Amino acid sequence: MGDAALTKERILEAALCEFAEHGLAGARVDRLAGRAGCNKQLIYEYFGSKERLFDATIQATSERLAVEVPFDPADLAGHAVALYDFMIEHPEAARLVRWHALERPGVAGSAPWLVQRNRHLVGAITEAQRLGTVAADLSARMLLVFVIALVQTNEDERLVNRGKPIPHPEKRRALRTAVRLLSTPSEQRPEPPRST
Amino acid sequence: MGDAALTKERILEAALCEFAEHGLAGARVDRLAGRAGCNKQLIYEYFGSKERLFDATIQATSERLAVEVPFDPADLAGHAVALYDFMIEHPEAARLVRWHALERPGVAGSAPWLVQRNRHLVGAITEAQRLGTVAADLSARMLLVFVIALVQTNEDERLVNRGKPIPHPEKRRALRTAVRLLSTPSEQRPEPPRST
Repeated sequence: MGDAALTKERILEAALCEFAEHGLAGARVDRLAGRAGCNKQLIYEYFGSKERLFDATIQATSERLAVEVPFDPADLAGHAVALYDFMIEHPEAARLVRWHALERPGVAGSAPWLVQRNRHLVGAITEAQRLGTVAADLSARMLLVFVIALVQTNEDERLVNRGKPIPHPEKRRALRTAVRLLSTPSEQRPEPPRST
Repeated sequence: MGDAALTKERILEAALCEFAEHGLAGARVDRLAGRAGCNKQLIYEYFGSKERLFDATIQATSERLAVEVPFDPADLAGHAVALYDFMIEHPEAARLVRWHALERPGVAGSAPWLVQRNRHLVGAITEAQRLGTVAADLSARMLLVFVIALVQTNEDERLVNRGKPIPHPEKRRALRTAVRLLSTPSEQRPEPPRST
C-alpha cells in the first residue's frame, strides 16, 4: 500500500471515531485531523468535504461488515446474530448508522455501496423464497428491513428494561428466535400441540 | 390553564421542532425561544437546562403517544400499526426518539415516564402470555423491544429499497404480519399444509 493509501485509511479510522461520537454536524475536521495525525488540508484534498468523508466512512464500515458478516439466505437467523455480534464488537459502527439515518435522510447517493449490497441480499432472499427455504409471509425487502431493525435495538432495550441494557446472551437468543419466526416456512415450523 | 402553563406548553412545542431538527447538541436555546415567542431566560427558569428541556420534551411526546395509541396486549399487531401511524403523522416524534438514543444513551432518569410506562406494558404482555393469548417464544420484554424496533425502520427502508422509502401501505401490512408471526401462540397459527 502506498503512503497516500495508508494516510487515507488512517483518516477513515479517525473519521469513524469522530463521527460515531459527534455525528456529522457535530464532528470537527480539525479534531479529526488531530486524531489521524495529518493536516486538515489533506482531508479536504482526499475526500472533498466533511459530508463526503462521512459517506466514505459509511462505505468503509459497510465493506468491512460485508467481509466479516457472511450472508446465507438459508440461515437468516444466523446472519442476524452475526450482525448483532459485529455491532456489539464495533459500537462505533452501530452509532454511525444511526447518525446516518438522522443526518443524511433520503440523501440520494449517500450510501450507494450499501444500497447496492442490500439489493443483492434482497435478490438472494427472493430466490430462497422461490425455492421454499425462506417463508414468503413477508416480501424479501421487508424481511431484510425487519432483520436489520431487530439487530439494532440498543437504546430501546433500556427504555423497556428499567433503564438497563438487556444482557447480550438474552438478546442474542431472542434475536435468533424472532428471525426464525419471521423466516421459517410454515411447513417447517414446529407442529402446534393438538388439544385432545 | 394559567399563563405559565400555556407558555410552558408553547415552549415544549417549539422544543419538539428544534430538537427533532437539530438534536440535543445541535439545538440552540435562542432559536428555540424565537420559535416559542418567549425570552431565553424564561426557558431556563422553567426547565433548568437544555438537557432537562430535552428530557421534558421526550416525556411530553411519550404522554401524547400513550393517549393516542391505545395498548391491548391481546392485539400487539394492532398496537404496532397504530404506533406506526402515529410516527408517520408525527415524524418529529420519530426523529426525537432517535436523537435521544444517540445523545442520551444510558442517561439514568432521562426518560423516567417512558421507562415506567414500558414497565406497565411488559407486565400486561407477561399476563397475556400466562393466559395463552400471546406466544411465549420470546420473553415479554424482548417482544416489546422488537415491536418497537419493527415500527421504526424508516431509514433502513431506503437503504434496502434502492434509496426510496417503502410505500406506507406495504410497510403497514408487513408490520402487522411480522408482529403476528412473533406473538401468535403456536396453536393459533394457521395449520401448515401437509405433504401427502
